[in-house]
Amino acid sequence: MISRLNVGLVGLGRMGRVYVANLAQLVPNARLVAVADAKPELAEEIAQEYGVPKSYGNHHDLLDDKNVTAVIIVTPTSQHATIVTDAAKLGKAIFCEKPLSTSLQEAEQVLQAVEATKVFFQAAFQRRFDAAYVAAREKVEAGEIGTPVLLQSTSRDPYRPPLEFCDPKVSGGLIADMGIHDFDVARMFMGDVDVVHAIGGALAYPEMKPIGDIDNAVVDMVFESGALGVVQLSRNAVFGYDIRGEIWGTRGSIQIGYFRETPILVMTKQGITHDVVPYFMQRFERAYLAQIQDFVDNVLNDRPPSVTCADGMAAMRISAAATTSLQEHLPVKVARA
Amino acid sequence: MISRLNVGLVGLGRMGRVYVANLAQLVPNARLVAVADAKPELAEEIAQEYGVPKSYGNHHDLLDDKNVTAVIIVTPTSQHATIVTDAAKLGKAIFCEKPLSTSLQEAEQVLQAVEATKVFFQAAFQRRFDAAYVAAREKVEAGEIGTPVLLQSTSRDPYRPPLEFCDPKVSGGLIADMGIHDFDVARMFMGDVDVVHAIGGALAYPEMKPIGDIDNAVVDMVFESGALGVVQLSRNAVFGYDIRGEIWGTRGSIQIGYFRETPILVMTKQGITHDVVPYFMQRFERAYLAQIQDFVDNVLNDRPPSVTCADGMAAMRISAAATTSLQEHLPVKVARA
Amino acid sequence: MISRLNVGLVGLGRMGRVYVANLAQLVPNARLVAVADAKPELAEEIAQEYGVPKSYGNHHDLLDDKNVTAVIIVTPTSQHATIVTDAAKLGKAIFCEKPLSTSLQEAEQVLQAVEATKVFFQAAFQRRFDAAYVAAREKVEAGEIGTPVLLQSTSRDPYRPPLEFCDPKVSGGLIADMGIHDFDVARMFMGDVDVVHAIGGALAYPEMKPIGDIDNAVVDMVFESGALGVVQLSRNAVFGYDIRGEIWGTRGSIQIGYFRETPILVMTKQGITHDVVPYFMQRFERAYLAQIQDFVDNVLNDRPPSVTCADGMAAMRISAAATTSLQEHLPVKVARA
Amino acid sequence: MISRLNVGLVGLGRMGRVYVANLAQLVPNARLVAVADAKPELAEEIAQEYGVPKSYGNHHDLLDDKNVTAVIIVTPTSQHATIVTDAAKLGKAIFCEKPLSTSLQEAEQVLQAVEATKVFFQAAFQRRFDAAYVAAREKVEAGEIGTPVLLQSTSRDPYRPPLEFCDPKVSGGLIADMGIHDFDVARMFMGDVDVVHAIGGALAYPEMKPIGDIDNAVVDMVFESGALGVVQLSRNAVFGYDIRGEIWGTRGSIQIGYFRETPILVMTKQGITHDVVPYFMQRFERAYLAQIQDFVDNVLNDRPPSVTCADGMAAMRISAAATTSLQEHLPVKVARA
Repeated sequence: MISRLNVGLVGLGRMGRVYVANLAQLVPNARLVAVADAKPELAEEIAQEYGVPKSYGNHHDLLDDKNVTAVIIVTPTSQHATIVTDAAKLGKAIFCEKPLSTSLQEAEQVLQAVEATKVFFQAAFQRRFDAAYVAAREKVEAGEIGTPVLLQSTSRDPYRPPLEFCDPKVSGGLIADMGIHDFDVARMFMGDVDVVHAIGGALAYPEMKPIGDIDNAVVDMVFESGALGVVQLSRNAVFGYDIRGEIWGTRGSIQIGYFRETPILVMTKQGITHDVVPYFMQRFERAYLAQIQDFVDNVLNDRPPSVTCADGMAAMRISAAATTSLQEHLPVKVARA
Repeated sequence: MISRLNVGLVGLGRMGRVYVANLAQLVPNARLVAVADAKPELAEEIAQEYGVPKSYGNHHDLLDDKNVTAVIIVTPTSQHATIVTDAAKLGKAIFCEKPLSTSLQEAEQVLQAVEATKVFFQAAFQRRFDAAYVAAREKVEAGEIGTPVLLQSTSRDPYRPPLEFCDPKVSGGLIADMGIHDFDVARMFMGDVDVVHAIGGALAYPEMKPIGDIDNAVVDMVFESGALGVVQLSRNAVFGYDIRGEIWGTRGSIQIGYFRETPILVMTKQGITHDVVPYFMQRFERAYLAQIQDFVDNVLNDRPPSVTCADGMAAMRISAAATTSLQEHLPVKVARA
Repeated sequence: MISRLNVGLVGLGRMGRVYVANLAQLVPNARLVAVADAKPELAEEIAQEYGVPKSYGNHHDLLDDKNVTAVIIVTPTSQHATIVTDAAKLGKAIFCEKPLSTSLQEAEQVLQAVEATKVFFQAAFQRRFDAAYVAAREKVEAGEIGTPVLLQSTSRDPYRPPLEFCDPKVSGGLIADMGIHDFDVARMFMGDVDVVHAIGGALAYPEMKPIGDIDNAVVDMVFESGALGVVQLSRNAVFGYDIRGEIWGTRGSIQIGYFRETPILVMTKQGITHDVVPYFMQRFERAYLAQIQDFVDNVLNDRPPSVTCADGMAAMRISAAATTSLQEHLPVKVARA
Repeated sequence: MISRLNVGLVGLGRMGRVYVANLAQLVPNARLVAVADAKPELAEEIAQEYGVPKSYGNHHDLLDDKNVTAVIIVTPTSQHATIVTDAAKLGKAIFCEKPLSTSLQEAEQVLQAVEATKVFFQAAFQRRFDAAYVAAREKVEAGEIGTPVLLQSTSRDPYRPPLEFCDPKVSGGLIADMGIHDFDVARMFMGDVDVVHAIGGALAYPEMKPIGDIDNAVVDMVFESGALGVVQLSRNAVFGYDIRGEIWGTRGSIQIGYFRETPILVMTKQGITHDVVPYFMQRFERAYLAQIQDFVDNVLNDRPPSVTCADGMAAMRISAAATTSLQEHLPVKVARA
């Protein structure tokens, strides 16, 4: 029999339940032994549905459960710092959804807690586990396109979030909330960022303006190597979910992404039409599974985390600098580790 | 807790193990309670690996296991008839890989056994569970392309089978072995076939000629409705696996299929290149899972089989007529039920 | 100054005027010195519009014009034989639109007249001059896909012709009228055809049935080499014009054609849509020009015709055999030269 | 007979000869009556080749030719101002290749000369005449994508220019030389630009660094409407010529451009490959013809120019601001008319 990792999960919102379904059914070497949520009855219901032995109404009880070797944190971002710190003290292996925290300062505390305790900590950036990004990275590392000189990373949602989630004090604003994935992609292919400049506006949804958030942004980046980068973010790809990347090298280029979900074309007098990737759970369904599988494998096999707490911190520093640039209308240096 | 179907599986070859992995890990409402193979030690090893309670060295013992409510048959085709007949007598729900049998005559006996016992029997045609074929069928049934008047279905393997599997006495020959999927697709979209005409040859692999098999074939079909059909089969799509379909109607057309696996493009001085779908397990990984999930759901919910034994029989009749046409160089009527 | 070929053109229908515009404006080394049409006032009007020195009301006067070195025949097919024979006697270089004639017998007479007089004669098959077919041919001849073993050639019109043109006595029927291009493509890539089998029906436009024509056909072919071929013909590609080809070889495959005209995608909530090639003048605009330029260059430089009268004859023999197969429901041998 | 415009052309470099071939052979209502070049023997040779009545060794003589009604200026940029000014005084209709001048200051003088004399002046931006850009503009103006909120325009050359042409004092540098087309596209879809910010570097060709030019740049733009823009420029699209655009609106998006030239795919064990658009003469062959045809039609029919001198000036102002931003590492306001 294969050895299995005993996992506890905190936070049973929409994403939390995706993790539960993956861990309970699709990760053979994980055993989901406990779930926790601020709503204890929800935790109990889900524990029943998936045959999870224990359910708790807060993270303390779950962390105290001796059967819990590793903890998956999918709570609202505001609780990440506390739970990570508590778990680190208890020596639990940690997987934490992005971003580390709502503030750069608090994120620094998380990083210090992780580094001080030398606990196993893996940050969540599911694009690193998507087949296209993985293949692109292999090709870049194999030198197929020479030295990369320019990266473009694009994320476009099909609609804006409900207005109550748009408050930048909660979400961090478009650049922090959405761009953090692109900033991590940028670092993965090109290394650290030196300077950023951001422009943006509430252009498609004027009702976001009084709340203080924007729906479109362009961030340009100069990497420490001198190479160039562009991140484009938008909430109005009304046709579907648009995640793309381009890496341009001295000997070739790689284009990542496509618009199509189902491989059929419908051809009528109105033209030729195909469907689209509706949203991120369709686009990244397999990547989310591969990511949590990777975490379980790493812990079981004493391998280092594939994405470190420092990686999560670095992406936050870029997004913080870009947000400042947007407000001050000037290029901004990214803070160094 | 959800109710679960207790399943036994016979036949642990390559495809059998795909079914085992799906049933043991990815079908939440199935419980794989027994596996059987002519090699008992293989059965035992796989039972251990996947935590299956029982393993057997023949199908009789597995069928006699009171815990086995449903049986999945993934043995060599030559054993299908016996196992289906035995299972039907015991009233087990049956899922049987295609084709029903190696001979039309024996397949008729299977059909009679199934119909006489009124046992639940679901035939295996995984393309019916592929997202693209499902979407195409929905659109055709919704009238989006008007009345279908012509269907093309294409299957091209990247290489020929090992020569020992090419003997038509074993495999049935290219048209029976490979075309049966396309004949089922044809019936799904266009109804029954009236007349077929086939041409073919050992054109890419001359070493197949002495064995009596061919590596390329074209089968044209006139449906009972008067509509037209073309099936193309080949073993020399050397770049990868090529499964496509076209349905042409009075008000539009649907194109099914694509060549690309990973959504990246590599652009160098040599041109623009993308990868391809390597073979059927990559192309139909999800369809195989959806198919066996569908079987389990149908049995648990007392729903009729999605693909009947008569469907399996009908596809065999088309392939038998096409094989005769190939040999006699004449159009051949398809036998009626 | 470059040397120029003095050209006369007979037949000022829609296609005739395309040739006039090309010859008068876009072929620098042609001088259009005369046009003729059964309607003399039309000939005069067009001569004035394009600055052509002479206009005539019949082909005799045009052929008698001493300034006419080469004649372009774009009349209704029924007049081809007479005009070609007359022009051959006078030693004019001849370019004749397809097909050679409405009957195989009369076409044989044309071929004999051309061969007896050894006059320069170039048959019209514009696909041979289309960039995609040219590139495919170069790649096949360079061995990039190994030995070709199967060819598919498809022609689909967006609508049926007016019913008065559907009478097979006039048009030759779908297979002769439309398929002749595909039969020529087949010979270009695969050599001569041994046996054909055709199926078809008036499936999309039942009003064609009483007239005796069909709107969809599938023709399978066995080449003399043993290789296989499929031609698909249809009048109901309602979205646009669909001209495609596939050549499958022992080491690779080439796909010819695409659906898109203008390189833009429109992405809205209704999906992702692009436009289509509307009809053959958009698809083959450049090929028609390249073809007539090639004729002029060949005559001026004493080069042999790129497409011979025998090529035109061979395509007609395939289409005649396919038409017989359609009527007799049997495979039919193609007549040999 | 159609009325014709008598045209003289100055500047017989590579592009000049493309214009000569178009005007002499493909624009039916133009009559190329004179050509001029600083090398009189080249002018004479080309006049002979194309049957142009007169050739001159300087622009003065050509402008003094009473037969010259309109002048096409395709000289090195440094001579544009003088020739335009001279032609304007003589009341000739003027078509001038981009950019107006090498300096913003001199370009202002050109604009004043044109506006003072009220002469007909059409600026050259061939993308405005490309079928894809034309179709995109029609769709945007028809409201198909709602209000545009973000534009991206990309130009990537397959290789760098010879080093002697890279001196920014001659070429204006990458942003001015190459980006001016994208800045014009930006204005066409989104209106005037308020602020730009540019980053760039000599990243693929370090040998450009000592000369002072760069090979990659990203320019972000805030339009006066508040909408956003990104221009990407590069000299290292080593696979071919990459011209693309994206317009994102509140109700949809349009993607302009594609990588493929010939509609064939080659599928071998190495993957699926298609060719690419090699360079701008292949990509814009038809647009260059449509552009000069449009000029001729406008003059003959007393219509206003499709692209004005003020349009040329506006694009230059954006490129000047972007070049300043690149040097000063700060966002820069675009000068107003």
